[in-house]
Amino acid sequence: MNDIIAQIIDHRSVRSFKDQELTKEEIHTIVKAAQAASTSSLLQAYTILGITDKEKKAKLAELAGNQSYVEHNGHLFVFCADAHRLEIASQMEGVDLGDTLSSTENFMITVIDAALAAQNASIAAESMGLGICYIGGLRNNLYEVSKLLSIPKHVIPLFGLVVGHPAQMVDKKPRLPMELVYHENGYQTNAVETRKQLEQYNAIISAYYQERTNGKRADRWTSQIAQMLTQKSRAYMKEYVQSQDMDTQ
Amino acid sequence: MNDIIAQIIDHRSVRSFKDQELTKEEIHTIVKAAQAASTSSLLQAYTILGITDKEKKAKLAELAGNQSYVEHNGHLFVFCADAHRLEIASQMEGVDLGDTLSSTENFMITVIDAALAAQNASIAAESMGLGICYIGGLRNNLYEVSKLLSIPKHVIPLFGLVVGHPAQMVDKKPRLPMELVYHENGYQTNAVETRKQLEQYNAIISAYYQERTNGKRADRWTSQIAQMLTQKSRAYMKEYVQSQDMDTQ
Repeated sequence: MNDIIAQIIDHRSVRSFKDQELTKEEIHTIVKAAQAASTSSLLQAYTILGITDKEKKAKLAELAGNQSYVEHNGHLFVFCADAHRLEIASQMEGVDLGDTLSSTENFMITVIDAALAAQNASIAAESMGLGICYIGGLRNNLYEVSKLLSIPKHVIPLFGLVVGHPAQMVDKKPRLPMELVYHENGYQTNAVETRKQLEQYNAIISAYYQERTNGKRADRWTSQIAQMLTQKSRAYMKEYVQSQDMDTQ
Repeated sequence: MNDIIAQIIDHRSVRSFKDQELTKEEIHTIVKAAQAASTSSLLQAYTILGITDKEKKAKLAELAGNQSYVEHNGHLFVFCADAHRLEIASQMEGVDLGDTLSSTENFMITVIDAALAAQNASIAAESMGLGICYIGGLRNNLYEVSKLLSIPKHVIPLFGLVVGHPAQMVDKKPRLPMELVYHENGYQTNAVETRKQLEQYNAIISAYYQERTNGKRADRWTSQIAQMLTQKSRAYMKEYVQSQDMDTQ
């Protein structure tokens, strides 16, 4: 295993940072790495926001569910799916795109492009000795986030990414057994087999929590999932996405 | 700049591979790297298919638009957004999720999770001296792809990823100027400034094509975009995604 793969596999999310801002050079290196990611037909259908304004950062932390590490970190990025720039490009050529930007296919392109860029940013940051954590909580209230960050139509803030000098490292969380995630030549739809493998994973996850909490907690993965998903999360999302003229047809 | 960032920034898509299959060990290392990516609430809402069956591979290449490198490569992965496993997990706990898996929020989670994993796979593969190319053409006909790969409800094949020993390297494609992609403290909505920066990029892209084609081609980026987007691409996508019980509400 080479050093790059060793680093990738050693990933863990960091939620506690030293009080040290990233330098402009570090930020630029991370963005440059993000931009080098693959992109559908060179569309580069994403925009990255960097939040340095302290009030905005505090407000975003509040909107994302009052997680302190969204406010206190080395830098806060916000990754956005972006078809707005494509519209301007087309206008420059005198072309009216009509409603083509609003398609579900286009929505998927922009989300995938943004996510690929973000993961490049994450790997680059970690290679610099920095820690990272994705902030899905940013999607708790995208109407307010959009107002705060002047988000135009055809742009959707997808998640935050906090980066910084780690104050505290946590253990790696074990992932699903590979057989559950990687199937050959077609989707493995044998439910009996799947359940057996999920039970194995439950045992691994329970042991992980037990060890970390001195036996106080021993959640199964399947019970976490079932509990989490019974509540409909961010039920406003379809309405919001469509209000941004995305994913409407 | 460290070695990892140097490698990330040196990325280019490879579309011509030597006739040499990846070893099982290489495939497992790549999948392991994919699994180490960040994932929303440990949901790990994706599945990776590896296609070794020659007939299926040929059929997928045809469906993806007859690109020969989809058939001829070291390995073909298909990355899928996957909420099906979450449903099984919940059933194991006696919980009926009803329609919560069909939400737009859940659709976004699965697409983002799959894309983060795929980019980890790409970086890992490149670190092993392999070349990669994403195959968005897989979305040309997802009804047939789904039938071929036994895709269940709540699962959506998003893209292929071909990996292999490069037979031919191409030049890196220049990316948008950083000022267009990275904005501080809010989305930069100054259209005049944006147009000026896009003109700068047009000059860079034109020069890139001129050099590569001995002057025969000198496309502007904005004209490529305008031309590409006037035709509505994969207009069936919303219907398909919803037929998979995703993104319906």
